[in-house]
Amino acid sequence: MNKIKNITVIGLGLLGGSLALALKEKTEAKIYGIDSNPEHLDTALSLGIIDEITTLSEIKKSDIVIIAIPVNHIPDVAGEVLDNIDENTLVFDVGSTKHKICKTIKKHPKRGNYVAAHPIAGTEFSGPEAAFSNLFQGEKNIVCDANKTNPEILNLALSLFTSIGMKTDFMESKDHDKHIAYVSHLSHVSSFMLGKTVMEIEKDERNIFNMAGSGFESTVRLAKSSPDTWTPIFIENKKSILKSLKEYIRNLQEFKHLIETDRYDKVFNTMKEINHIKYILK
Amino acid sequence: MNKIKNITVIGLGLLGGSLALALKEKTEAKIYGIDSNPEHLDTALSLGIIDEITTLSEIKKSDIVIIAIPVNHIPDVAGEVLDNIDENTLVFDVGSTKHKICKTIKKHPKRGNYVAAHPIAGTEFSGPEAAFSNLFQGEKNIVCDANKTNPEILNLALSLFTSIGMKTDFMESKDHDKHIAYVSHLSHVSSFMLGKTVMEIEKDERNIFNMAGSGFESTVRLAKSSPDTWTPIFIENKKSILKSLKEYIRNLQEFKHLIETDRYDKVFNTMKEINHIKYILK
Repeated sequence: MNKIKNITVIGLGLLGGSLALALKEKTEAKIYGIDSNPEHLDTALSLGIIDEITTLSEIKKSDIVIIAIPVNHIPDVAGEVLDNIDENTLVFDVGSTKHKICKTIKKHPKRGNYVAAHPIAGTEFSGPEAAFSNLFQGEKNIVCDANKTNPEILNLALSLFTSIGMKTDFMESKDHDKHIAYVSHLSHVSSFMLGKTVMEIEKDERNIFNMAGSGFESTVRLAKSSPDTWTPIFIENKKSILKSLKEYIRNLQEFKHLIETDRYDKVFNTMKEINHIKYILK
Repeated sequence: MNKIKNITVIGLGLLGGSLALALKEKTEAKIYGIDSNPEHLDTALSLGIIDEITTLSEIKKSDIVIIAIPVNHIPDVAGEVLDNIDENTLVFDVGSTKHKICKTIKKHPKRGNYVAAHPIAGTEFSGPEAAFSNLFQGEKNIVCDANKTNPEILNLALSLFTSIGMKTDFMESKDHDKHIAYVSHLSHVSSFMLGKTVMEIEKDERNIFNMAGSGFESTVRLAKSSPDTWTPIFIENKKSILKSLKEYIRNLQEFKHLIETDRYDKVFNTMKEINHIKYILK
């Protein structure tokens, strides 16, 4: 990692900004930033997240290029980045969906330089102001279709992920998208809709403020997430998200029916079974 | 509060146990415990949560009686407690639904001794082992139908709630139950069903373990809650919970339809509006 002199981060939001900060601590590299939003660039510069502003045409000098933009734009930008890099450059993205990206760059002559990563890290906040270097500490990371990456490039990426505190696992990109719809994307929809339902009924927001305990706050936390990040995820993972939503709604309807028909033994047993989640998530 | 010599706690779970511990720190009182589960009594004694085991027939000597049992049993026990207390005893319960309790004891000659309270405090854990004295620190508390309580009794209760760190607000019991269905009970259903949906699809639990980030963990946290506590709440607040669930399901169906029909501008705007929740819950 000592040989890393230049890192370019494309997209200086929560994830890109936090990666820049984390890598500043772990390497001696100079950090360059690219963002379509000039305010993000100014903020990132003034907060010391990046050292200098750059453009896509200048990334040839970068040892590492990180793509941390909304997922629907990653496939195009990934292709453009691969077109412009040096032969030893590591390129990786941190998007929440992976299949379309992997499919798009599949036949690119520089495919071996690319690592399709998904750090399972984030908060409900967004933008460079929300970035912090510890975001990845102790978190999981999924690398997809790793057999398509050159071994040396992959090793560099893995040692970099490890250095900022992440534990990496491997999956096929298609499987990743299918499973992440349930384990992450569905939570966001459920939380957004919970926030909507409560705000619709509680026109007088004092009731929410006065009656909200830590339970509501934790369940509705993701409803604070950025639509700029999440709309593209719903676009890219449409099929799997719709499937998970259908099953979620069916489970809600069944549970509602149990309450309607006073079948409280079944209500009890259903919850008891679901309690098993505590042995999966310690 | 110096005059308080004896406190009886009925129900030594998370809330009752935590109240016992908190009041041990704030008063010089001896704490007596009652629980239908002999194991809870043993645990509470051995953990120093209570000083002595007692029975309902002996509560006459208590300055304060706290009812912290599943909500469906509170109305009956509340009546029995009021039948047996001294004229200056404060009795309060901590149940998550309040209307039926207030209705049941409405005409009791000792109604003035009763405070119908709902501390908005808790964790996903249960039983005396889960109790801790700080549970109520900084949390909200709702007292219902406070005009039915004798002013001196009410003042004693309020100073006691303040002493353990809670900020009390007042509501009509009927309104309380209606609003709490949305702001608390609905979160529990949404979280339980999220856990169910994810576990149904992820037969191989490694996927949940490997892919679960803090977002999923926070949204599904309440699915670890005790069915012993929550089945009675769904029984007692059936009507309002069904209404909130109906609206939640309708919102989910609408959002699903927006994704199905690729109306992503509307998906974006819906989430943007819901983001307003961050100004209500700081």
